[in-house]
Amino acid sequence: MSANAATFIERLQTRWRDHRTLLCVGLDPDTVRLPAHFSGRKDALLAFCRDIVDATADLVCAFKPQVAYFSALGAEDQLETLIGHIRARHPGVPVILDAKRGDIGPTAKQYAREAFERYGADAVTLSPLMGYDSIEPFLANPFHGAFLLCRTSNPGGSELQQLVADGEPLYERIARLAATQWNANGQIGLVVGATFPQELGRVRALAPRLPLLVPGVGAQGADLQAALRAGLSSEGDGLIINSSRAILYAGAGASFAQQARQAAQQLRDQIEALRGSLAPRA
Amino acid sequence: MSANAATFIERLQTRWRDHRTLLCVGLDPDTVRLPAHFSGRKDALLAFCRDIVDATADLVCAFKPQVAYFSALGAEDQLETLIGHIRARHPGVPVILDAKRGDIGPTAKQYAREAFERYGADAVTLSPLMGYDSIEPFLANPFHGAFLLCRTSNPGGSELQQLVADGEPLYERIARLAATQWNANGQIGLVVGATFPQELGRVRALAPRLPLLVPGVGAQGADLQAALRAGLSSEGDGLIINSSRAILYAGAGASFAQQARQAAQQLRDQIEALRGSLAPRA
Repeated sequence: MSANAATFIERLQTRWRDHRTLLCVGLDPDTVRLPAHFSGRKDALLAFCRDIVDATADLVCAFKPQVAYFSALGAEDQLETLIGHIRARHPGVPVILDAKRGDIGPTAKQYAREAFERYGADAVTLSPLMGYDSIEPFLANPFHGAFLLCRTSNPGGSELQQLVADGEPLYERIARLAATQWNANGQIGLVVGATFPQELGRVRALAPRLPLLVPGVGAQGADLQAALRAGLSSEGDGLIINSSRAILYAGAGASFAQQARQAAQQLRDQIEALRGSLAPRA
Repeated sequence: MSANAATFIERLQTRWRDHRTLLCVGLDPDTVRLPAHFSGRKDALLAFCRDIVDATADLVCAFKPQVAYFSALGAEDQLETLIGHIRARHPGVPVILDAKRGDIGPTAKQYAREAFERYGADAVTLSPLMGYDSIEPFLANPFHGAFLLCRTSNPGGSELQQLVADGEPLYERIARLAATQWNANGQIGLVVGATFPQELGRVRALAPRLPLLVPGVGAQGADLQAALRAGLSSEGDGLIINSSRAILYAGAGASFAQQARQAAQQLRDQIEALRGSLAPRA
């Protein structure tokens, strides 16, 4: 009960402050990149991710499984078991289901059921393109969180998110709505790529207290220091720095989990060192 | 082979022209609304949808299963079987998987695999918020189609889609990109709600040849005549008019499939009558 009596945001804060980590490990298990000894196993996605989880849980503020890698193979049962494993064995670590759902009300309600009841996730990523009534069903339970796509780390992200309407780019409008009228219960966060530190800074200015889920570090090669400088909250936290491939595939042999742990430890420590130098109040 | 030797768009055109129907039946099986005799059946979603499909296949230009209703219950296997049934028994009718996916390249590739390899859908709905590199993986096979959210039928749709950037609302920008630089192979369509006929007309003007998937008729109460007047192409077709709840739940008893057929027939005939009066060239 004790871990679950805290909201998603409170659980994140415990990880940020007491466990001193802003690192999130993204669980994107690509069958063609798994260590050879998993090949042919029917539960390969689960077995691989479970090893990664057990090797890194004390170093992370959250795990972020990407549902597409499971759905492509009809392996949703493995995702269910994986999240159940995290909740049972690492109950302090919240799970963000990376699903980027977005649909009209009655359908969004079904997706919320998928994320929170079926999978037991603590938070979910969403696309805000359809507006607030497509997000509201995910906020029905105040213990849950929802991260809205705001400024994504991919090249094509600029095509629409950078369009300037009423004097502000679309991503800033999303940040402003997310920080104010859409955020009645303090459950909303934003997805902002580390690859655009200046824009990360704009989002932080518009949403001083929102948790920001930040992909783009590691395989996508963003400047970590610039991202932290731009994105840390005034309390010296507020960021969930995601790394997937650079940790999952740090090693390819039998010791892949140890190597993943080393990569995670290195990134976590690097973040903590920068965080100490950038945000003396933390 | 013959049905599959045509692209998604060509198959749609055959339905529009030779079968004289613009109607799409949306397969959104909500357990609480199914006829009583399905209750307790483990394959209730599949059994219900299969009856609806068999009762309406000759009247439709496409079926549109909504993945959320299956995912909420962990019933993806029923969705697989349902689409397999449509392909086997009604091979001329294309299947649009309503999934509204949208993610960066490597993940989008996994979602494309889900839609086209796992489920065997002919087309998929997508959110364009992350730009072209999030859409491209769905266009790898020229036989497939992709419908991008443009102007959605829900109230919250206006919050972002109506923002005016560089003199045009976001939904018009999406329509313009979809009709030009994003549409190298003629595989893209747009989702435009029937509830906003004026905007449907703007989209048609910007994208004269794109298939438009039009929800909002039926339970959402849009004006059918206004939608057709605004949205028909110069060939008198180009529209996929979706109705889900008004057909699925037309009857609640043992004769639900017959009643669904009657509702589908009525709407199809109504569309054809209007289409005849509005587009004499067709």
